Amino acid sequence: MLQDLFTPSVQHALDLAGIFVFAISGALLAVRKNFDVFGIAVLAEVTALGGGLFRDLVIGAVPPAAFTDLGYFLTPLVAAALVFFLHPQVERIQTGVNVFDAAGLGLFGVTGTTKAYEYGLGLTASAALGLATAVGGGVLRDMIANEVPSLVRWDRDLYAVPAMVGACMAALFIQYDMLNVLTSAIAVVTTFAIRLLALRFHWRAPRAWNRRSTAVEIDE
Amino acid sequence: MLQDLFTPSVQHALDLAGIFVFAISGALLAVRKNFDVFGIAVLAEVTALGGGLFRDLVIGAVPPAAFTDLGYFLTPLVAAALVFFLHPQVERIQTGVNVFDAAGLGLFGVTGTTKAYEYGLGLTASAALGLATAVGGGVLRDMIANEVPSLVRWDRDLYAVPAMVGACMAALFIQYDMLNVLTSAIAVVTTFAIRLLALRFHWRAPRAWNRRSTAVEIDE
Amino acid sequence: MLQDLFTPSVQHALDLAGIFVFAISGALLAVRKNFDVFGIAVLAEVTALGGGLFRDLVIGAVPPAAFTDLGYFLTPLVAAALVFFLHPQVERIQTGVNVFDAAGLGLFGVTGTTKAYEYGLGLTASAALGLATAVGGGVLRDMIANEVPSLVRWDRDLYAVPAMVGACMAALFIQYDMLNVLTSAIAVVTTFAIRLLALRFHWRAPRAWNRRSTAVEIDE
Repeated sequence: MLQDLFTPSVQHALDLAGIFVFAISGALLAVRKNFDVFGIAVLAEVTALGGGLFRDLVIGAVPPAAFTDLGYFLTPLVAAALVFFLHPQVERIQTGVNVFDAAGLGLFGVTGTTKAYEYGLGLTASAALGLATAVGGGVLRDMIANEVPSLVRWDRDLYAVPAMVGACMAALFIQYDMLNVLTSAIAVVTTFAIRLLALRFHWRAPRAWNRRSTAVEIDE
Repeated sequence: MLQDLFTPSVQHALDLAGIFVFAISGALLAVRKNFDVFGIAVLAEVTALGGGLFRDLVIGAVPPAAFTDLGYFLTPLVAAALVFFLHPQVERIQTGVNVFDAAGLGLFGVTGTTKAYEYGLGLTASAALGLATAVGGGVLRDMIANEVPSLVRWDRDLYAVPAMVGACMAALFIQYDMLNVLTSAIAVVTTFAIRLLALRFHWRAPRAWNRRSTAVEIDE
Repeated sequence: MLQDLFTPSVQHALDLAGIFVFAISGALLAVRKNFDVFGIAVLAEVTALGGGLFRDLVIGAVPPAAFTDLGYFLTPLVAAALVFFLHPQVERIQTGVNVFDAAGLGLFGVTGTTKAYEYGLGLTASAALGLATAVGGGVLRDMIANEVPSLVRWDRDLYAVPAMVGACMAALFIQYDMLNVLTSAIAVVTTFAIRLLALRFHWRAPRAWNRRSTAVEIDE
């Protein structure tokens, strides 16, 4: 059942990169919310590890990587320390949160889908769990910060769609036996690019209230 | 340890029905909260699958049914699409949320208790986990929607009591070896009826603040 | 890997004591938030069992103790009933929440670290999970009560530090093979004392915004 989709070190480096960028996004939100230094560390840890922790509990990979790999635990603390000392001026913070979050979204969607498939889930379920891995940390971050998660707000630019595209690309690459470092990178960069374009041009999803012709997007 | 309390297809149909009605309640709340189409889908999925996911993680049934049965994943999307296109006028929404929620409450309380017992929990723990299965999705729904969960609000009509009655009825039926489709249906309908009566006549639970004679309800 | 760090009955008594005091803190917050009697019971259960449930899911101890030991389930109900009938006047409530919470913080940090280590986690991960066990219930409590968790608020007195000190003491005692009832009690009382001192003298952690010299605390 297990496949060597990546060499362990590449998988590990991708995981750490995703953890780092999500932790930055969590720490920056904590700064914006005026949390103290421990709040910054907590929100960095939760944002970085929450999605993967959920994935590992669901697939039965216990204890989760977050608690067996010291690097997973320490990386968010490094990110929190960086933000604590070097965070940009207040006006730049929201942009920083968004760009780092977009990178984490791509990385986690692809590695989450891959790991779920390695543990025997079907392709659709793997993509769904990859999506949950990607957005889970951010939802937990917003819930702890006592905000309505960006994920579900109509006045926020597209967030679920880019992660969905990346996770589905990874699932398709798996199905056609084409998943490797290059195709994974393509899926990650596609997610990142779509999210940044959505931010740049304020692409938004429709609300039920004002029924629009674009409403068919729900079917995908 | 495992008992054939239901035929698999009946159990499955009951599960899908509970998932569907909870998803409707989540999607309707998302509409009321003005979420976008993805927010509607997310809240439908979380409300429908959250309680069962929690139950499956607790009893060690991993990967949870939510990720192994494609129908469990797709049903909330169907419910979200229905709400997206056909949701009633704004005034009717709260009633819709409440009625569908009452049906899900009954279905999940009974199936949750049954599944917990099948996995070897004691009768009291099974009833408690059945209750958690029934109310868990709604609590998650309200937490993501950034509201105080209906479950704990004093100004909301009785919610925990009907689910508790249904879960305890299921546990008693199990104890006396009387659990079958008919008795399960009785427990579900009892929950549903008590919840609707509570809504109709605004039955409420006492608060500690104003100590009342009805305060003994805590002992049950 | 498993060690008999405590006799089972001592471990059990410590667990029940921690559960009881956390349940009191949850029930008191529910009274302050004006929840009904079921909201009081729910918040008592969640605050008392949430951290341990998270710990058990992470280390794969399923079904979690919360669902196999009837005492774990009933103790919060007793606490909720006590608070329901005997809760002090409104002015005293916040103090009560804080003192009981401090006791639970110490007990759960130490028992959480110990149990995580017994299940094979490394010392650092054990201390981290002990910390999560200690603060997890309170974070869930605040999230359900729709408040920003005390844990991350800059205007609240030190909360994470005392639990961190206690969990690290327990980890060090384990490393040097010195963990017993006496040293455990020392770790618990140290946590409790630091937390009460922090409350008394309003010790607070710095925010990133106003960079202060104390900012190096993040490194520990």
